Amino acid sequence: MGGEKKKIVAVLPKGGPAAKNPKYLNCVENGLGLREWLESLGHTYITTADKEPPDSELDKNLPDTNIVITTPFHPAYMTRERIMKAPKLELILTAGVGSDHIDLHAAADKGITVAEVTGSNVESVAEDEVMRMLILVINNQWDVPAVAGKAYDIKGKTVGTVGGGRISHHVMKRLEPWDVKRLYYDRHQKADRFDKMGVEWEKDLNSFLSKCDIVTINVPLTDSTRQAPKLLVFNSNLYTAYPTCERDEEVLPRRGMFNKETIGKMKRGAYLINNARGAIVDQDAVVEALKSGQLGGYAGDVWPQQPAPPNHPWRHMPNHAMTPHVSGTTLDAQERYSKGVREMLEAWFEHKPFKEDYYIVREGELAPQYR
Amino acid sequence: MGGEKKKIVAVLPKGGPAAKNPKYLNCVENGLGLREWLESLGHTYITTADKEPPDSELDKNLPDTNIVITTPFHPAYMTRERIMKAPKLELILTAGVGSDHIDLHAAADKGITVAEVTGSNVESVAEDEVMRMLILVINNQWDVPAVAGKAYDIKGKTVGTVGGGRISHHVMKRLEPWDVKRLYYDRHQKADRFDKMGVEWEKDLNSFLSKCDIVTINVPLTDSTRQAPKLLVFNSNLYTAYPTCERDEEVLPRRGMFNKETIGKMKRGAYLINNARGAIVDQDAVVEALKSGQLGGYAGDVWPQQPAPPNHPWRHMPNHAMTPHVSGTTLDAQERYSKGVREMLEAWFEHKPFKEDYYIVREGELAPQYR
Repeated sequence: MGGEKKKIVAVLPKGGPAAKNPKYLNCVENGLGLREWLESLGHTYITTADKEPPDSELDKNLPDTNIVITTPFHPAYMTRERIMKAPKLELILTAGVGSDHIDLHAAADKGITVAEVTGSNVESVAEDEVMRMLILVINNQWDVPAVAGKAYDIKGKTVGTVGGGRISHHVMKRLEPWDVKRLYYDRHQKADRFDKMGVEWEKDLNSFLSKCDIVTINVPLTDSTRQAPKLLVFNSNLYTAYPTCERDEEVLPRRGMFNKETIGKMKRGAYLINNARGAIVDQDAVVEALKSGQLGGYAGDVWPQQPAPPNHPWRHMPNHAMTPHVSGTTLDAQERYSKGVREMLEAWFEHKPFKEDYYIVREGELAPQYR
Repeated sequence: MGGEKKKIVAVLPKGGPAAKNPKYLNCVENGLGLREWLESLGHTYITTADKEPPDSELDKNLPDTNIVITTPFHPAYMTRERIMKAPKLELILTAGVGSDHIDLHAAADKGITVAEVTGSNVESVAEDEVMRMLILVINNQWDVPAVAGKAYDIKGKTVGTVGGGRISHHVMKRLEPWDVKRLYYDRHQKADRFDKMGVEWEKDLNSFLSKCDIVTINVPLTDSTRQAPKLLVFNSNLYTAYPTCERDEEVLPRRGMFNKETIGKMKRGAYLINNARGAIVDQDAVVEALKSGQLGGYAGDVWPQQPAPPNHPWRHMPNHAMTPHVSGTTLDAQERYSKGVREMLEAWFEHKPFKEDYYIVREGELAPQYR
């Protein structure tokens, strides 16, 4: 029971009445189920939903905090500025998957370790994506001709996933008996993961987009998905000018991997699903494409900024199926990622390494997907 | 081009703006795509949405109509009374699947043939049911704690289907790679259709219900599903007192296959999905079970009476995912059932038989599922 006593701050949403369910771990009240254990070890554990700079409870605690725990669902943006204000910060854990709300370069510069519970959300998000496909294609609402006038079967359609990762794999696996043509776009062929189960590789994004009736995005938000490659070439300063963790307002001048041009390469009336990150798509291009009919529908669980402001255009655009970042945080997923966070904290306290694929920043080096 | 000239009345919903899409066949305006062809043969073809007795356009036309075409989506209830008013009626076709809106005994008594486009809706409805499962389990809405506090993965759950028919088969087939336990309830084992792909047979309804986290109903509305078996035994007069085609009001004294007792045999908080027919479940028992938490959610596409009146309690009960009978009428399904109707009319005009499994009433005999 000896060892250094740590100050740990977890930024989580308020649970309210839902917190009465002890399985609802991802909230201030239930604190990922870690409080009793952390306090029994003599550590200080603060859970808060208050995360907006400059005077939030998170900000006030930064000067003497050792470990920050955040989530992609109610993200505390760990900017370079905040990291600089936290001289004792040694570890940032993401309860969940995707550490794009953290300035990884700043963390690397300061020797801070960043890790996440890789895999904890995979099946939840994959299930959610198939649900969104079905909602968009089947188009259920209360006006029968309005529904049946543009409702389809998914059978016989071409469904493509962007990115050759685990979620893409789980989505494609679930669609195996649905009688759809399945494609994946990735720079690299991943024959074992996809081709073997009949999912065809497309290495050219434009060719891929021109074939799909439904496109689902499953890549992380990185410098290359956040920013259009063309802009990168046009002005390479932009690349470094924007750290990974920037907020929506600052991102707007850039276009995202799905911008007017890429959406224009899709079949007219095709559906786009994005459970990955809001900033991968150009916000205005999506609204425009839905209005013109270039997109038949857009189902997104993620937003450029979270929580999304009440006047965010994605709340009011036609043919959307938007939700406020809940995929990947089912009770089943909460159990998995809370367990993963505890496992990493245990290892940290005992100076042991994490599971290899949990690391996002380690000893000044970014994980390959973020390089 | 010779042969008898027929008067054919099709009762379809009004399409409105959706009718501009020529693929939207299931509406008054586009008349299942049959008008040009029928009129070129010299037949009279009337399409109307006006179906409420006693003075509807349907009723006015009954005295000299030879063929009535109806759908389950905007059902014209072909009661004994109406059939008696139509001395020239020889054929009633259901554009779609499910002929429970027709008094089959009355049709049989009068030697009228009844047929439907068996199989035309199977894949559409199966897709829709999996969507409903995911919507109920994942529970997407706008309040994050309200969602994440009772959202689950479908992975690891037990999903059961009631009835060993085609839709059950397609639902279970689609769930094969979803890592769920799959059960089917039917009086008869159908090993080739289910057991072979790992779906386990349950021959006892109560035992089946006690094991399922999600139950989906896929049986036709017949005298035995409409009426609780106990009541049948208790008073066998009830069985014959209610012809198959009765309206909601008249059905209310009976309880349906899913009544307070059967719902009470389900796991607490389980989900119930009903894309089959509204009258298979007891309307009030569902509302009560949702309020008490016995049911975690109810997703239905079908109603005891269609269109459902604005004050129908199913529109306002908690944790529902109701829609107004649109599953089975996607544009892809419309193409299939309109084609099936034309195929049957062509055969009828040429005095040739239909495909065997299209017949519901033939030469005074009801198809086995309605006996």
